[in-house]
Amino acid sequence: MTSPFDAAQTAARTQAIAADLAAVEWITDGRVERLSQDFYWFSPVLKRQLEGLRADAVARPKTEDEIRAVVAACARQGVPITARGSGTGNYGQCMPLHGGVILDLSAYNQLLWCKPGVARAQAGIRMMEMDRKTQAEGWELRCVPSTFRSATLGGLYGGGFGGVGSINHGPLASSGNVLGVKAMSIEPEPRTVELRGPEALLLHHVYGTAGLVLELEVGLAPAHPWLEAIVCFDSFDAALEFGDALASAPGLVKKSVTLLAAPIPDLLLQAVPVLAGTMTARSHAVFVLVAEFSEQGFQQLVTDFGGSVTLRKTAAEVRSSNRTIVEYTWNHTTLHAMKVDKGLTYIQSGMQAGKHVQQAKTMRKLLGDEVLVHLEFIRTKEGAMNCSGLQLVRYRNDERLNEIMQIHRDHGVYIANPHVYIVEDGKQGQVNPDVVATKMRFDPQGLLNPGKLRGWEQREQIMADAASGRVSLATLPRF
Amino acid sequence: MTSPFDAAQTAARTQAIAADLAAVEWITDGRVERLSQDFYWFSPVLKRQLEGLRADAVARPKTEDEIRAVVAACARQGVPITARGSGTGNYGQCMPLHGGVILDLSAYNQLLWCKPGVARAQAGIRMMEMDRKTQAEGWELRCVPSTFRSATLGGLYGGGFGGVGSINHGPLASSGNVLGVKAMSIEPEPRTVELRGPEALLLHHVYGTAGLVLELEVGLAPAHPWLEAIVCFDSFDAALEFGDALASAPGLVKKSVTLLAAPIPDLLLQAVPVLAGTMTARSHAVFVLVAEFSEQGFQQLVTDFGGSVTLRKTAAEVRSSNRTIVEYTWNHTTLHAMKVDKGLTYIQSGMQAGKHVQQAKTMRKLLGDEVLVHLEFIRTKEGAMNCSGLQLVRYRNDERLNEIMQIHRDHGVYIANPHVYIVEDGKQGQVNPDVVATKMRFDPQGLLNPGKLRGWEQREQIMADAASGRVSLATLPRF
Repeated sequence: MTSPFDAAQTAARTQAIAADLAAVEWITDGRVERLSQDFYWFSPVLKRQLEGLRADAVARPKTEDEIRAVVAACARQGVPITARGSGTGNYGQCMPLHGGVILDLSAYNQLLWCKPGVARAQAGIRMMEMDRKTQAEGWELRCVPSTFRSATLGGLYGGGFGGVGSINHGPLASSGNVLGVKAMSIEPEPRTVELRGPEALLLHHVYGTAGLVLELEVGLAPAHPWLEAIVCFDSFDAALEFGDALASAPGLVKKSVTLLAAPIPDLLLQAVPVLAGTMTARSHAVFVLVAEFSEQGFQQLVTDFGGSVTLRKTAAEVRSSNRTIVEYTWNHTTLHAMKVDKGLTYIQSGMQAGKHVQQAKTMRKLLGDEVLVHLEFIRTKEGAMNCSGLQLVRYRNDERLNEIMQIHRDHGVYIANPHVYIVEDGKQGQVNPDVVATKMRFDPQGLLNPGKLRGWEQREQIMADAASGRVSLATLPRF
Repeated sequence: MTSPFDAAQTAARTQAIAADLAAVEWITDGRVERLSQDFYWFSPVLKRQLEGLRADAVARPKTEDEIRAVVAACARQGVPITARGSGTGNYGQCMPLHGGVILDLSAYNQLLWCKPGVARAQAGIRMMEMDRKTQAEGWELRCVPSTFRSATLGGLYGGGFGGVGSINHGPLASSGNVLGVKAMSIEPEPRTVELRGPEALLLHHVYGTAGLVLELEVGLAPAHPWLEAIVCFDSFDAALEFGDALASAPGLVKKSVTLLAAPIPDLLLQAVPVLAGTMTARSHAVFVLVAEFSEQGFQQLVTDFGGSVTLRKTAAEVRSSNRTIVEYTWNHTTLHAMKVDKGLTYIQSGMQAGKHVQQAKTMRKLLGDEVLVHLEFIRTKEGAMNCSGLQLVRYRNDERLNEIMQIHRDHGVYIANPHVYIVEDGKQGQVNPDVVATKMRFDPQGLLNPGKLRGWEQREQIMADAASGRVSLATLPRF
């Protein structure tokens, strides 16, 4: 790829900045390589494209002042900045295409406050740590990825979509989940601003390209005692319908419902010795987090749909074992399955709410053994029950992989392509003019994670269209 | 109506029982008339049919032993028993068709325990009192009627459907809302049994005909600080769509969304002086209970849909004023409107989830000024967002009232007819064989609220059909 940045110059300037800002923690040794990566290798396509990318140095600031110093220096020198949490994403979101500085925010990690239903934290806080603190007040995060142990809140906001808990509150982008963010501009004199409401979503899921997020204020959910269970079924349809009924049941309080169709449970049993005995061989498994006080209704549904509970752990047992079945769901399923079958990759999809059960059946019939069904029940942004697929795919070649995604689209299933690293390519190619305009305010030189936002190349056209009234932009943040 | 009971004999026997059980509180004076009634007069049809009904005496027991003594005596003497909470129902549910004893359970009212997510109480507990106690533990009832101040938990279970909070947890009948009930049989030696799960619903919404409910174990919801607001709109469609968007928004935590189309707000303003200034004249109003921590997203939606917030009270203000807008929703709307326009009555309806917004628009166009639109957003038993109508109707005559209900049915809107006092007539005439079989176990002589369950007259046929396999009955409670 051709770069607007001179690699040698960027490297030299980065070194000079690191030398100049000696009070900040800098990493310049062999760890830089690991800190320049995420789980991009889930995709054979991205593995080929992104392998070997490396920043020139990693800065790990602990305070806003340290962040400001690094940002100001980079802005003055024209050095790319790629923000990073724990690197648990998997589209190369935080991998620097053009070197420069990795801004590792994992040491900028304080919980600022927690009130009923809302908390505010620095972007680098690990979600497990945040939950530990807010749970003491009776609250917890509304959605976490399966990587919550190491993943940061800012990372979820910048590179994620939703997760465990989205079955109740929808994706992060649903109103009320992210109340505000404090963002910094990439300028010689960096400015900060608090974005509230819809503005707070302008920097969401754009891989840290449009502005630097320092703090997040997020909605919390009541922390219930979650019972963890695995329910096995002989029939795929029964497992799917059970999952949908449980997910939808308004009187049964739950946090997560995951369907892993055969043979995924067998792959997990192979990959994870500690799961021995927790699932029936050759079955379809539903992984469930349900409130202990809703167990009676949950067990009734298991009976109604002909399932067998093959694992049951109370909240206290989960806590004392320090193990949760959450770490076998979402992209942890992919991770474990790939351990035993290197030929696997995956796709991400979204069914149409209301048609989701039928679509899931249809796609399974169509794609048989080539696509292994993994569904997570979640609410849509508007609140309807739906399921999101993280189907495992037996990879043959890129053409067939694209064909499989196209077959999904042809059947009305939305694809969030995880084999691309450009923001818009994961979203059916759609450029969002508001995001581009936002980036123009926060990052006029285009230094944030350069090369990931296609719309940036179209900024002059977008501004001209806005000026002529052909495009109407959202009200944009003011400093 | 012809009675299987001899009125004079029933009266004499009732007096004898009251004399015999002097340790129990009996009411035999003028108050009996009021205690034999509910809000049946909302319906001009029921007013004609039920006016003047009167029990022979009211027993107000305080303990299970006292209840058992009354029940045993009535069973031995063949005296009808009609259980009653506070009489806030409105289909004559607790009005005795054949005299006998009113079993007023309002003094049998202890909260037995409250744990996270679940509580258990005696049937006569007032819901406000129960909430007051469980809120101290951070929990509250999942749904309450607008009459929560006086209405009892047993009354809601026996004669109600859902209420404020059903927007989250669906109707009472959704799995997880009622976990168990303790029921007593009407026999010379009364027996009690705990019914769990689906069995616990066999006595629900059958007006106390099928068994006597002593205790209820119910799911609780987290008690959030509820902000109360009224939002006024010039446009009916905007008000409706705002209500639906707020009700559905998965990240905005709410307890109630009520749409009162014009001219209902004007009727309320006339009926309730204290509401002066809280609504714009000639507007469509949406009454909202939303968590304080979700206010930002709520206000954003108000802006998006072009509404104006004309009342805003914090949870603390609601508490200190001892007034809540809940008392202008559900059937309180009907009550207040009828104060200023005696020509009004109402109907109850259920839209089809997903089509509910369109159906509401269609019905309003069709029925113009004759039917005043009042909708409550609630989840269906299966969990989809929907709305339930308590439309006000300008009453002309019974034929037109029935015609109006038929027009709704013809457009796919479910009608729960509030102008009938027979259980099945409110449910499209459907006899439930399981309820009849349950009544045969709990009330073999047919003494409970006689004349209200049509299926009871068909019991021999139902049992014959069950024996021959033509009808399959649910597993019934065993003592």
